[in-house]
Amino acid sequence: MHPALRIARLGTEPAFAVSGMARALAERGHRIYPFHIGDLNIATPANIIAAQQRALAEGKTGYVSPAGIAPLREALADDTSARRGVRYSAENVAVQPGGKPVITKFVQALMNPGDEVLYPSPGFPIYESQVEYFGGAARAYRYVATGDGFGIDLDHLESLITPRTRLLIFNDNHNPLAAQATRGEIERLADIALRHDLWVLSDDAYYEVCYAGQPEHVLSVPGMEQRTVLLYTFSKKYAMTGWRLGAAIGPREIIDVIARLNVNDESCTAAFVQWAGVEALRGDPAGPRAILDELRQRRDLALSLLRDIEGVTAHPPRSTFYLFPNVTGAMARKGFDDVNAFAEASMRECGVSFCTRDHFGRRHPGETEHYIRLAYSGISQADIREGLAAFKRWLAS
Amino acid sequence: MHPALRIARLGTEPAFAVSGMARALAERGHRIYPFHIGDLNIATPANIIAAQQRALAEGKTGYVSPAGIAPLREALADDTSARRGVRYSAENVAVQPGGKPVITKFVQALMNPGDEVLYPSPGFPIYESQVEYFGGAARAYRYVATGDGFGIDLDHLESLITPRTRLLIFNDNHNPLAAQATRGEIERLADIALRHDLWVLSDDAYYEVCYAGQPEHVLSVPGMEQRTVLLYTFSKKYAMTGWRLGAAIGPREIIDVIARLNVNDESCTAAFVQWAGVEALRGDPAGPRAILDELRQRRDLALSLLRDIEGVTAHPPRSTFYLFPNVTGAMARKGFDDVNAFAEASMRECGVSFCTRDHFGRRHPGETEHYIRLAYSGISQADIREGLAAFKRWLAS
Repeated sequence: MHPALRIARLGTEPAFAVSGMARALAERGHRIYPFHIGDLNIATPANIIAAQQRALAEGKTGYVSPAGIAPLREALADDTSARRGVRYSAENVAVQPGGKPVITKFVQALMNPGDEVLYPSPGFPIYESQVEYFGGAARAYRYVATGDGFGIDLDHLESLITPRTRLLIFNDNHNPLAAQATRGEIERLADIALRHDLWVLSDDAYYEVCYAGQPEHVLSVPGMEQRTVLLYTFSKKYAMTGWRLGAAIGPREIIDVIARLNVNDESCTAAFVQWAGVEALRGDPAGPRAILDELRQRRDLALSLLRDIEGVTAHPPRSTFYLFPNVTGAMARKGFDDVNAFAEASMRECGVSFCTRDHFGRRHPGETEHYIRLAYSGISQADIREGLAAFKRWLAS
Repeated sequence: MHPALRIARLGTEPAFAVSGMARALAERGHRIYPFHIGDLNIATPANIIAAQQRALAEGKTGYVSPAGIAPLREALADDTSARRGVRYSAENVAVQPGGKPVITKFVQALMNPGDEVLYPSPGFPIYESQVEYFGGAARAYRYVATGDGFGIDLDHLESLITPRTRLLIFNDNHNPLAAQATRGEIERLADIALRHDLWVLSDDAYYEVCYAGQPEHVLSVPGMEQRTVLLYTFSKKYAMTGWRLGAAIGPREIIDVIARLNVNDESCTAAFVQWAGVEALRGDPAGPRAILDELRQRRDLALSLLRDIEGVTAHPPRSTFYLFPNVTGAMARKGFDDVNAFAEASMRECGVSFCTRDHFGRRHPGETEHYIRLAYSGISQADIREGLAAFKRWLAS
């Protein structure tokens, strides 16, 4: 078989390899502490499940409109508007089977071959994959350590802009860095987009997994509403990762194009899943509040244990369910200079599995510090405690 | 906004316009007999719904493997193998959110820009849309009336082949023609694919909506298993259109590519929906049998009423839930020479709504007869009776 040439440009999620190795070790009887999993081991709230079952009982099992059912489009428009200081209506929303499909559809709708696209590295690897797959030139911008977290290197970002730059992918409340932009960063980023006439994909996957108020949003800057497509997902806030429910939200003319892509691809998102989404947005907020409380406790626990390990530096993130500690010192003490070898040894020798910086895109020149990503979304507090104690013992041994 | 240039090549399903007009008339109080809908007004069998609810109760709400859960991949391999005389295993199956995504993924995986692709017209309009969207040259082959149905014009099909022809899309048990290939047609089609080294997409959407035994299948011809991707869907047989569950099934190396496209697009199909699919395939077959019985009764009823109308010629189809009558005589008697004007007048004047030949691709030179498509999947027997009586009166008036 000769696959089409475009397939050679198609990337993947390298983190799947970590899951595979963890599963293989677990099957051989190893105790694994799964800090590598970007999924939640928390149940979807009962009222959301009940809403889906009601929809099924009412026979909502047929095709629906490619852009989604009206009640969900309206609920999403209301909810995202209220939280971001804009005014969307149902026509600004195209429901998707997850948040991830918004990446490919944004790229397909707005990028021509040869166009340059700014995206974060470290960052979610599908950005780069989809830009290159559709013939664009992916240009990675970087984040820098600020002392209490990470900030976008905006000078570096702006230095990458050429007359061919057309799109900017921005993932505030960032995976894997857990970085949250300040008002100043948001305004300067918006200013760059406006001056250089860039379309922005705002990947809001973790926008509402926030432990300290509501984050600033690029949409609140005048002029940005006309050039921003928002990636919305139910996955994290409502513990609905496997439901596959999300939306593209933005200017109507681009949403119409994305809905035409829906017609050509998945047709529509399951109606009963969409009704569950309506309940998530309009129903009792106790469920997502309890999820956020649990995640906060895990964050505090994991952070305090990590900070107690020599050679590991971690900052307290305001959002997401990731920690991105610097482990350069710990690696040196154990005699590692390759962070991936370090990660494999940790999984094998103390059962603590995690991703590394290299699972999130190519390194920039001059990156010398070593980082790992610990997710606390798929592991209980008891196992966080036990796992990080084992990690500490292994590092000290 | 300037959408990317590729968007100008992206087609749609023109039949949505018929639904829109029918809905608008219904809202103004018109009685509409919906023969235009390719959906079912029949409930998904209860055991399938119960299986989904069990999966939800068991907390199956997280991410699963991009190619699908193992039990569903195995069940699909077993079921499709048994019905088509081949031997698939789980590795030959990539679960999809519906049958339709298989079209775009087959095209993306195997077609380079400039490659020529054979596809049927009339036929499902997304074939042409996706081929042209990804830069291929869509070459329509035709069907001809055989006296008791339609057959592929295989001489015409073969005459379209050039050194650049690479893919052949074949939709046996055809939408909208309801054509089912004979063993002779299947063998000649396979011979063409083998001699010209073509990959085949076998769109099996209606393969099991068959009223007379099991259809022949192109996979039963030696050598075809290595060059065929099967589009499987749960939509029709199990009345699960809105569940969005299907699969690409074929040689492992192409399925691996399609699974990588899954990673980049929808991530995975909802786990609890996949468990419902396992029940559909492994559980009580009484549900799909009852669906087929109901459809058979509707087919017989609609066919006998249509054949009783002057100027309308229809053949008894062995499969699908469509009738594709020739209405050239009836149009002439009413003074129409445009089949779409005829369809609009019918909807407005007697409430009978249907699609026409023109909703299924561009006409071939020399097409002079006029055809319409009546779907009997979304309308009760009582309404079939009442609607076709109104159609007959209107035509006679």
